[in-house]
Amino acid sequence: MINFGIAIHGGAGIVSKTKMTKWKAEAYSQALKRAYSVGFLTLKKGGSAVQAVKEAIIILEDCPLFNAGKGSVYTNHGDIEMDAAIMDGKNMMAGAVASVPFVKNPIVLAETVMKKSKHVLISGTKALEYAKEQGLVIKEKEYFEEEERYKQYKRAISRDKVTLDHDDDKFGTVGAVALDKKGNLSAGTSTGGMVNKKYGRIGDSPLIGIGTYANNQTCAISCTGHGEYFIRSVVAHEVSARILYKGQTLTQASKEVIMEELPGIGGRGGLIGIDKQGNIVMPFNTKGMYRGFKNSKEQEFVGIFS
Amino acid sequence: MINFGIAIHGGAGIVSKTKMTKWKAEAYSQALKRAYSVGFLTLKKGGSAVQAVKEAIIILEDCPLFNAGKGSVYTNHGDIEMDAAIMDGKNMMAGAVASVPFVKNPIVLAETVMKKSKHVLISGTKALEYAKEQGLVIKEKEYFEEEERYKQYKRAISRDKVTLDHDDDKFGTVGAVALDKKGNLSAGTSTGGMVNKKYGRIGDSPLIGIGTYANNQTCAISCTGHGEYFIRSVVAHEVSARILYKGQTLTQASKEVIMEELPGIGGRGGLIGIDKQGNIVMPFNTKGMYRGFKNSKEQEFVGIFS
Repeated sequence: MINFGIAIHGGAGIVSKTKMTKWKAEAYSQALKRAYSVGFLTLKKGGSAVQAVKEAIIILEDCPLFNAGKGSVYTNHGDIEMDAAIMDGKNMMAGAVASVPFVKNPIVLAETVMKKSKHVLISGTKALEYAKEQGLVIKEKEYFEEEERYKQYKRAISRDKVTLDHDDDKFGTVGAVALDKKGNLSAGTSTGGMVNKKYGRIGDSPLIGIGTYANNQTCAISCTGHGEYFIRSVVAHEVSARILYKGQTLTQASKEVIMEELPGIGGRGGLIGIDKQGNIVMPFNTKGMYRGFKNSKEQEFVGIFS
Repeated sequence: MINFGIAIHGGAGIVSKTKMTKWKAEAYSQALKRAYSVGFLTLKKGGSAVQAVKEAIIILEDCPLFNAGKGSVYTNHGDIEMDAAIMDGKNMMAGAVASVPFVKNPIVLAETVMKKSKHVLISGTKALEYAKEQGLVIKEKEYFEEEERYKQYKRAISRDKVTLDHDDDKFGTVGAVALDKKGNLSAGTSTGGMVNKKYGRIGDSPLIGIGTYANNQTCAISCTGHGEYFIRSVVAHEVSARILYKGQTLTQASKEVIMEELPGIGGRGGLIGIDKQGNIVMPFNTKGMYRGFKNSKEQEFVGIFS
């Protein structure tokens, strides 16, 4: 019996239970199910973990419910600046993009950087040039524009507040981790960043070893939450190092990092992880995290609150 | 007896011994000595590790011999885009800047991000806006221009080659690590990046846990080399995790990472590190690394080749 599986998240944060109506919750659940189902099918057909992660994230990027791709929030300048990363645990190759505008699927750009460029991380409008050279789908600004999100941006501006997309029940990130039939691990993360973010701020999502990490020796991790704290704790690699050097399980390592270490410095958020045995974890220290998984043992789960 | 000390580097790479004339070597050595001496004096007077690291790096950034600050190399577009990071091991606070133009001392901007902003990493021309708001010294493009470096850029363009500033005996990065009298560790790194770099490429230098990391529990690390490989290996945090969880010494951990793990994936470069006892390491797998240190035991060293 070969284990394989995929877990995904659509962001962690203070989900207000009162604001979360039955139908709203249902819509999010359906979107999450759709994303992990597509990724799972890819794995079942013998596709790679990298492919499954990419395909699940494309669905979440194309879905306006989540703060990534089409659903990205506005920066302080009223721009869209997206971050994404993907890593292949088989060969430790990685690709990432920071603060890129107009690319329909930043995760595809990250994969292209990994597979076709000499770089790991590219950024800004010059990364957009690369996306164009590589023939990726580019969208006009209108594609990313949505009235509700524009109001949220205007509120943030008026309060001079940089928010994690907490109000309106929208949260910061999407991500996926997968183990394929060949035993290879992969992780990917994509985000539109913080509402009203300034100064070309880059969060943890596109940073290898921090928001995104995969290593066949240990695990694959995708994080979501207040990025600055995740950076200072080098979260994804910290979980991996605890498994490799401290002999912890993925469950122990990820729980200690998310429930003890991060809150110790004031950091809020969560992660999803999968190890080489197919064990899946989804710890978070916030009130909720959009999340789901499906694996070869016919186990399936989708959830929002704890 | 309280141990304290500082180590610095001015980049690693293929230093050609035949091109390194006696007087050229002497000039580099004098610059390195000047940088660690200023940092050491700061520590001796009771200054913090963060302050010592910053002051040593300012000297290297202001010196045209090194690829950082004034000595930064040209991107593919003929621009200057600098990266820097600093971390305080006492409270795990960190600040970093990627692809910023025109700021005289990117390390000062990184420190300002750490101390005054809500962010860890900011980038691009919007990071320049922040630098201006904070009253940092901004220079015209002419300040960074140098004929020899412009020729190097033109050669790289003509060969369509992204180089680590290897020819002309100029290398990629400057950095410093320090332990102060109070037992606090700090690390900082600054660079002008790769010659002829494209697409807003960001290397390892400004990435916390990768090119730059400090943690009072373990060590302070600043890396130099081919950044893409350092990112994939999450080098600085890897060294720290081996100390914390595998029980290795700083010497063992840094040697294994630089001499075994990195070459295993084709990565070339080195690092400087200091631990809470004041032990200093400077491993590199290239032919040379500009480096030096000075500590409270009256030990002092400056070197270029192995």
